[in-house]
Amino acid sequence: MKKVGIVGANGYTGSELVRLLAFHPNIELSFLYSRSNSGIRISDLYPDLATVCEMVLTDKPVEVDILFLCLPHKESQNWLSQNAVGDDVLIIDLGNDFRLNGEFNNRNFIYGLPEINKKNLSGAKSIANPGCFATAIQLALLPLAERGLLNEVYTTGITGSTGAGQSLQATTHFTWRNDNISAYKTLTHQHVDEVLQQLNSFNEKEVSLNFVPWRGDFTRGIFTSSTVKSDLELSDIEQLYREFYEEAPFVKVSEKAIDLKQVVNTNRCVIHIEKNENVVVIHSAIDNLLKGASGQAVQNMNIAMGWEENLGLNLKAVGF
Amino acid sequence: MKKVGIVGANGYTGSELVRLLAFHPNIELSFLYSRSNSGIRISDLYPDLATVCEMVLTDKPVEVDILFLCLPHKESQNWLSQNAVGDDVLIIDLGNDFRLNGEFNNRNFIYGLPEINKKNLSGAKSIANPGCFATAIQLALLPLAERGLLNEVYTTGITGSTGAGQSLQATTHFTWRNDNISAYKTLTHQHVDEVLQQLNSFNEKEVSLNFVPWRGDFTRGIFTSSTVKSDLELSDIEQLYREFYEEAPFVKVSEKAIDLKQVVNTNRCVIHIEKNENVVVIHSAIDNLLKGASGQAVQNMNIAMGWEENLGLNLKAVGF
Amino acid sequence: MKKVGIVGANGYTGSELVRLLAFHPNIELSFLYSRSNSGIRISDLYPDLATVCEMVLTDKPVEVDILFLCLPHKESQNWLSQNAVGDDVLIIDLGNDFRLNGEFNNRNFIYGLPEINKKNLSGAKSIANPGCFATAIQLALLPLAERGLLNEVYTTGITGSTGAGQSLQATTHFTWRNDNISAYKTLTHQHVDEVLQQLNSFNEKEVSLNFVPWRGDFTRGIFTSSTVKSDLELSDIEQLYREFYEEAPFVKVSEKAIDLKQVVNTNRCVIHIEKNENVVVIHSAIDNLLKGASGQAVQNMNIAMGWEENLGLNLKAVGF
Amino acid sequence: MKKVGIVGANGYTGSELVRLLAFHPNIELSFLYSRSNSGIRISDLYPDLATVCEMVLTDKPVEVDILFLCLPHKESQNWLSQNAVGDDVLIIDLGNDFRLNGEFNNRNFIYGLPEINKKNLSGAKSIANPGCFATAIQLALLPLAERGLLNEVYTTGITGSTGAGQSLQATTHFTWRNDNISAYKTLTHQHVDEVLQQLNSFNEKEVSLNFVPWRGDFTRGIFTSSTVKSDLELSDIEQLYREFYEEAPFVKVSEKAIDLKQVVNTNRCVIHIEKNENVVVIHSAIDNLLKGASGQAVQNMNIAMGWEENLGLNLKAVGF
Repeated sequence: MKKVGIVGANGYTGSELVRLLAFHPNIELSFLYSRSNSGIRISDLYPDLATVCEMVLTDKPVEVDILFLCLPHKESQNWLSQNAVGDDVLIIDLGNDFRLNGEFNNRNFIYGLPEINKKNLSGAKSIANPGCFATAIQLALLPLAERGLLNEVYTTGITGSTGAGQSLQATTHFTWRNDNISAYKTLTHQHVDEVLQQLNSFNEKEVSLNFVPWRGDFTRGIFTSSTVKSDLELSDIEQLYREFYEEAPFVKVSEKAIDLKQVVNTNRCVIHIEKNENVVVIHSAIDNLLKGASGQAVQNMNIAMGWEENLGLNLKAVGF
Repeated sequence: MKKVGIVGANGYTGSELVRLLAFHPNIELSFLYSRSNSGIRISDLYPDLATVCEMVLTDKPVEVDILFLCLPHKESQNWLSQNAVGDDVLIIDLGNDFRLNGEFNNRNFIYGLPEINKKNLSGAKSIANPGCFATAIQLALLPLAERGLLNEVYTTGITGSTGAGQSLQATTHFTWRNDNISAYKTLTHQHVDEVLQQLNSFNEKEVSLNFVPWRGDFTRGIFTSSTVKSDLELSDIEQLYREFYEEAPFVKVSEKAIDLKQVVNTNRCVIHIEKNENVVVIHSAIDNLLKGASGQAVQNMNIAMGWEENLGLNLKAVGF
Repeated sequence: MKKVGIVGANGYTGSELVRLLAFHPNIELSFLYSRSNSGIRISDLYPDLATVCEMVLTDKPVEVDILFLCLPHKESQNWLSQNAVGDDVLIIDLGNDFRLNGEFNNRNFIYGLPEINKKNLSGAKSIANPGCFATAIQLALLPLAERGLLNEVYTTGITGSTGAGQSLQATTHFTWRNDNISAYKTLTHQHVDEVLQQLNSFNEKEVSLNFVPWRGDFTRGIFTSSTVKSDLELSDIEQLYREFYEEAPFVKVSEKAIDLKQVVNTNRCVIHIEKNENVVVIHSAIDNLLKGASGQAVQNMNIAMGWEENLGLNLKAVGF
Repeated sequence: MKKVGIVGANGYTGSELVRLLAFHPNIELSFLYSRSNSGIRISDLYPDLATVCEMVLTDKPVEVDILFLCLPHKESQNWLSQNAVGDDVLIIDLGNDFRLNGEFNNRNFIYGLPEINKKNLSGAKSIANPGCFATAIQLALLPLAERGLLNEVYTTGITGSTGAGQSLQATTHFTWRNDNISAYKTLTHQHVDEVLQQLNSFNEKEVSLNFVPWRGDFTRGIFTSSTVKSDLELSDIEQLYREFYEEAPFVKVSEKAIDLKQVVNTNRCVIHIEKNENVVVIHSAIDNLLKGASGQAVQNMNIAMGWEENLGLNLKAVGF
């Protein structure tokens, strides 16, 4: 049993990690760190955890084998600067501090998208877990990028309210958000750079990504549609995707139309491709808190530790 | 054209009054008062009001013929103590300051439920607008109370998120409230006293009301089911209700099952009665912001001013 | 008072017309035609219409001054072939039978987008009411098209469930659709031709439109984001839009971010423009049943009859 | 590994069983029976099952150790009459054919509410799985019934759309149901008899149950509030509940307010008790498809087979 600590366990991705790790067979939770909620039982913050995990949040971390950082952006660096962590501890950062530049202290954070980095992640000690939109968009585009087939990409994506975190904001007020759709960070979302860094590492031609993110009136999930130009036949593109994801247990290239709820409460990504004349549209869907955050973090832990990739991740879809 | 001022125009019921009064043929808006948002355009707070009403909120009230108070509880008294209002100004208070005790300064606030008080409201200068749950429950029970047929009442009611106001709270966070149901103020909701005061003024026997309010995962509307005992035939009860509401343009006693959306975005109340053995269940539905607040306030204004009761209240239901 | 008949009054757009016309000051409803529901009271199909309109659906049309056709695609032609309609009767077709080719019998249907066709619509006897997505997308693009500034357009749009009509389908089952997002008719939506016909009548260069429609988990409304390239300054583009819509009472070019609920239950369209480098994104929102169908039909009627454009269309937004 | 067959695997409860059993360590699925969808892959009906279970539905059952019947009411009897099932096969019926009268052929169906029948269920060969509302209401009332403290009960319960099954109906149309609340089967719901049979087997005085079921605008879950009279102190009642459920791993008596989403996608039931004067309100919440159907069926299987009660039921709550 490996010892695990979660820093920022009081947030959405932190508590989702608790939900996952409470039933993971190879680990035991050693501490749940939160400065603001220290002394409070995690199940008092998230009552669905009652009987599942009754640990008390602490601001005193102890020694562990694996450390998850679930902190607001830029806070991971601060925390690591202020808290000593042994060199042999596996650190998985769910924030965006180390995604674009993985060098920090003596560590070199590997970008934790297992579908492209599984080899590097095996045995890794430092992992930068990808962003939620970045995961959904990359999984939709990587097979084309690998072949150098990407040029200009037009993507619209919609995200659930959990993507905005637990803070109370005008745009997370139920009265405002229910039955509502809106755009935000048009063309300037912070995940664009993250996506381009990966795509451009594959694709010879420089890729441009015009990304319009929308806020959706649901809590969990991301659905994206990316439009690109290609002269390949649809069947060839599909074949290319199937081959690319042959060894990816959580990615499914579907010949049929997909919808968001196929993946809600799972670590899966579903992809569907359509084509009309020379225009290709690739749809992808993930659960932003799972494949887009905490689920992928567990997947990365499994790979880094040499465990089965889907350990603790055989999650029942919400389905309905 | 009568001049109207709205105090607390920045809140939900205040802005809903603006939506209604902007199209009312007999009035003109003179000022929208808000201390906290003074200087801000109402359409910047509520962009659906763009082109409909572009007035700037002010903390300097001017003389008007009609004054609506849309303030948090206890604030109406404070405001009236601090601001001089002429004796001939019609004041309609949407808070609960004057519902249980209508005496204030030299004014005597009439309880503004037109279905029982239309005569007193005609020509009135001071009106205490009923609470939202109080309206839905009373309209469901008054015909029985008038005949002295009520004894013990068991009511469950569910309300939309607008009932909780615009402040950001854990229970109005979209992530929490979406697809969620919960109870609050079980047996102790502040509207119970208001309901009992009216029911007991009719009913000889003292009525008891066991009221369980629920929070619903929608924004607008109240649906209630009240269970009572009665030996009357269902058809007699229905007849009694139809007679009671014969002259009430906004109350419809339906022989068919009702649902909440029949009344959303209207000033209407629909009622449906069912019976099994000696147990009677009366269902009622209203829009909490309209018949439960601002719509009823306009209805009261119309009656008080001697105008047609439904002036400015022929609202298109949302329907779907 | 002009006499009005509605054919297909039992459907969503037909019943929405009833909701609007019941309160329109210049008309009276003469008949509500439905073959399948003949003999049934409209308020039994749509109980929100109780007390508002209690007419019985009929399959025997009578003489009227104005006729609305709210029929499934291709059914308008059939109906007009089988039922004699006087030459002086104003016909407004809400289907898509006459949008691409307006010639039928001796009539020439004018494309009923008032923002570009107001002059032609004035006094018209035959009007083809635009499609819902077609309205939202055109209003977002027309000011650029008029200046010949459009080239390739990438649009994603999301529509409420009322867009799918009242038939029971797998994709309108609540259990499936709640909290769900999905794409349909990718790149092949029937409104693309309708949009291009108008855009290309303005724009010198041939416009291409890559349109990805999504199904949303709400009932009313359309939100679209269109991405195009332009070297103009954002302020110049905004100016261009404001000028284009100067005389359009229902279109608002907003400097601030927009959201869908700003227009739900109104006949309005709101537009917001953003720009990053040479990429421009234009967002637009309408209520698909109002500005996207029945509301625009009433607007067209008003213009054709020489009445005020917004008669009967001063609708209270749902707001929340 | 025990062999399992599911009859009616194409429905909601059947497919939910597949979701659960696909990851259950002690069983393997031998057949998924469906007459109407024979030959179709289950993952084509429920795409969330892709990669999880790709079995093809069949109308040819084979020999198994455990048989789940997920059929419409009265169909379980028919199926068992037409298909031979060995005496040593464990049959768990999720319909209501054997709940009120467990005698059928040579079998005697045990009522499968583990919280009262665990001993009888251990080693049982025939189990009648309780109804969803019946589970939620009984768990809320049994500790009082056991002490003979129940007399008259007033219960309101709200259920998600999955409770209505997968057939397309007016009341499961998204356009109708979204943001809507309605009552159905007022005082006459079929689960009332089932509840009373159990309560009256405990409670000396005859219990009466006035039950008003509501349809909610969400897919999963049941929330109930039951009002009763009692002279006991609240703390004594809570103590009584805690003792009653001491050995029940899936029932949590909460000192804090509960909400529906605490249990969605889990097999848990949460209960919260409030009291004012001599009036007691007991709230309970379950996931109607899990503790209210398929989850409880797996729990019953575990108990009957002598396995750990929570095997395969450590489900991640949806949480948000």
